[in-house]
Amino acid sequence: MALRCEVLAVGTELLLGQINDTNSSWIGEQLALSGIDCVFQAKVGDNHARIVGAMREALARADAVVICGGLGPTHDDITREAAAEVMGVGLHHDEVVAEFIRQLFASRGRRMAENNLRQAQVPDGATVIAQTRGTAPGLICPVGDDKVLYLVPGVPHEMQDMLERAVLPDLRRRSGEASTIASRTLRTWGESESGLNERLDDLIAELDAAGNPTLAFLASGWEGLKVRLTAKGADAAAVTALLDRYDARIRAELGTLVFGVDADTMESVVLDLLRARGLSLGLAESVTGGLVGARITAVPGASSVFRGSIVSYASEVKFSVLGVPEGPVVNPETAAAMAVGAQRVLGADVALGLTGVAGPDEQDGQPVGTLHVGLAIGDEVTTASLRMPGQREQMRQMSVISALDLLRRALLAR
Amino acid sequence: MALRCEVLAVGTELLLGQINDTNSSWIGEQLALSGIDCVFQAKVGDNHARIVGAMREALARADAVVICGGLGPTHDDITREAAAEVMGVGLHHDEVVAEFIRQLFASRGRRMAENNLRQAQVPDGATVIAQTRGTAPGLICPVGDDKVLYLVPGVPHEMQDMLERAVLPDLRRRSGEASTIASRTLRTWGESESGLNERLDDLIAELDAAGNPTLAFLASGWEGLKVRLTAKGADAAAVTALLDRYDARIRAELGTLVFGVDADTMESVVLDLLRARGLSLGLAESVTGGLVGARITAVPGASSVFRGSIVSYASEVKFSVLGVPEGPVVNPETAAAMAVGAQRVLGADVALGLTGVAGPDEQDGQPVGTLHVGLAIGDEVTTASLRMPGQREQMRQMSVISALDLLRRALLAR
Repeated sequence: MALRCEVLAVGTELLLGQINDTNSSWIGEQLALSGIDCVFQAKVGDNHARIVGAMREALARADAVVICGGLGPTHDDITREAAAEVMGVGLHHDEVVAEFIRQLFASRGRRMAENNLRQAQVPDGATVIAQTRGTAPGLICPVGDDKVLYLVPGVPHEMQDMLERAVLPDLRRRSGEASTIASRTLRTWGESESGLNERLDDLIAELDAAGNPTLAFLASGWEGLKVRLTAKGADAAAVTALLDRYDARIRAELGTLVFGVDADTMESVVLDLLRARGLSLGLAESVTGGLVGARITAVPGASSVFRGSIVSYASEVKFSVLGVPEGPVVNPETAAAMAVGAQRVLGADVALGLTGVAGPDEQDGQPVGTLHVGLAIGDEVTTASLRMPGQREQMRQMSVISALDLLRRALLAR
Repeated sequence: MALRCEVLAVGTELLLGQINDTNSSWIGEQLALSGIDCVFQAKVGDNHARIVGAMREALARADAVVICGGLGPTHDDITREAAAEVMGVGLHHDEVVAEFIRQLFASRGRRMAENNLRQAQVPDGATVIAQTRGTAPGLICPVGDDKVLYLVPGVPHEMQDMLERAVLPDLRRRSGEASTIASRTLRTWGESESGLNERLDDLIAELDAAGNPTLAFLASGWEGLKVRLTAKGADAAAVTALLDRYDARIRAELGTLVFGVDADTMESVVLDLLRARGLSLGLAESVTGGLVGARITAVPGASSVFRGSIVSYASEVKFSVLGVPEGPVVNPETAAAMAVGAQRVLGADVALGLTGVAGPDEQDGQPVGTLHVGLAIGDEVTTASLRMPGQREQMRQMSVISALDLLRRALLAR
């Protein structure tokens, strides 16, 4: 049976909805990818008796518990004390931890308030996970002969660092799991989950029978559907070989529906395709109001490809700046003229023009969700008319990825 | 003692991190605002025994439990059955619910798969919360003499509708709370939490002593700090009077640091100020790449004020389209010239120009975080140079609200 690990997030602000607990989901995903079962997660406030109670309940059900938060310097950071009570031990001052905290403050030229040394209190018998990004260390706290509490900070990047560096390796060791596990996520756009299911029918049946790698569909809204492969093998090379084999099988079935892998986004993929072809990009945006440019420029290094965007929200700006012929502006002809205008005004090789209706009201007799895209590559100009789902924000976000996908397909075809 | 209510989110996908549970936070906030204690929240997978166990544990600690999710039509939607087991009753078919589901499908012109009628199964003794936005009804399930389970769908807008319409009123009734509770959130920009604390020192001491209304600071990152007042009174008029009084007291201390209230955003406030003055807005964006325009146009009705944005990411676009003098482009003079250029090109009364360094690398010898803003109102041109914290995304988002805040203050001063 797989090792069982629960997650407990500590903090009254989490219960009051002042902060959303995103740590538990992230940890849950990492545990799943490491082959460790996580069947229960909880949130509890900054109350000693309730934290102790929650730890004990979790240990009664599971082999291990990851506890996030409550390790800071203030009087309501009491996770250390609660763990010591569950372990049945006292706390001692750890001078190595204390010295690290003092030096962190000194290096930032800040005075250290004395209460920061609370973070150097360590339950007897616990192992310190050295802090690298914040002042609070993590703690590995054995309970009885074979159970364990992992205390990590609530700050996401500190927590993630300690999970990857210390907690997951310790859990893998305890689980006796000698094999290596890794996953790869193929990102798709343009097909529904049931559609993908149908196309991958045979492959899914084969994987269900074999059990390795496993395949999961993950919906990610206006970022498309993800197809995740998780493989297990004797070593990294074996796992990579397995992932490569089924990655190729999936791509053979799905073709250009797959736009990227793992950290790729539609924006980064389009920028890479343009860069590889030595083409610059310009935009003319109306319905999206600057959102395409904003997402393109969120990618570091966009400046080597992206010239700019003419956000022509008012019709007169379409006419005067982009040279769109006067008249109604929610139609394919306008989208095409916007793209050509952006090419010219911005000095771009390739340009997209977007016009449509985001709502809340219809426009020019066209319903909310209408999107017309113009695409100019050199002298070639094409248009597409699409219907986006959802209200204002969803409609606009879907428009961004849909328009970029049209550009991606056109570039691939060249 | 206040009524105690826990929250249980059901769904294996929540534990695997495929979906982030945002429902629990939202419910926690609503419970707090209604004066109901919520000291524990949990997530459990789609497993009958574990859902039953989690319900029983929660009922042992609390008077009521809100359970989200697992009410759909598929075989892994088993929250209804688990609740019936905890209640010690059977399930029956509810024809009113069934007919509603049939008509919902008919009205959308879709065939209804037979498994949808699973959603018409109701535990004996439970009260149906009629569905208005989806196919699954909610259920109020009494347990024993004085405890209760509330079953609501996991789809956020369906859940929120049922909470507000049925669950919170039922909880208020059970708590014997006869008074009305309401809150108001003042949104601020430009001061740290400790700075706000200092300015409101006397007021906080007074409120701490009186206990009504209560005051809380809520950090919301690049959206600024929120100051929330929660007041209790005999009726809505008394509560509003109390909120009005302390709202005025806070504004007297904080002045223009307060930019809006409740649903206001910096974007909506700036648009309202411009609209009231009959002024149109244009933008020239470099470092933000279109983000200011994207956020402005996320507000419905922006088109009556917003002309557009020249996203001049490449320096040559600044020179050729906006008429910025050739040379280095990360300086106040460029920001000013961008604003003036945007005014002219877009035919706008007011324009903002933004240039800076988002990173990852420094530019023109200026560090990541540098922001220069130019503001042109009619013939008056001013500039401001700021240093934004954080890396690329945070730097850009902070730049948007900082630049809009400069515009807000300039408009207020006119």
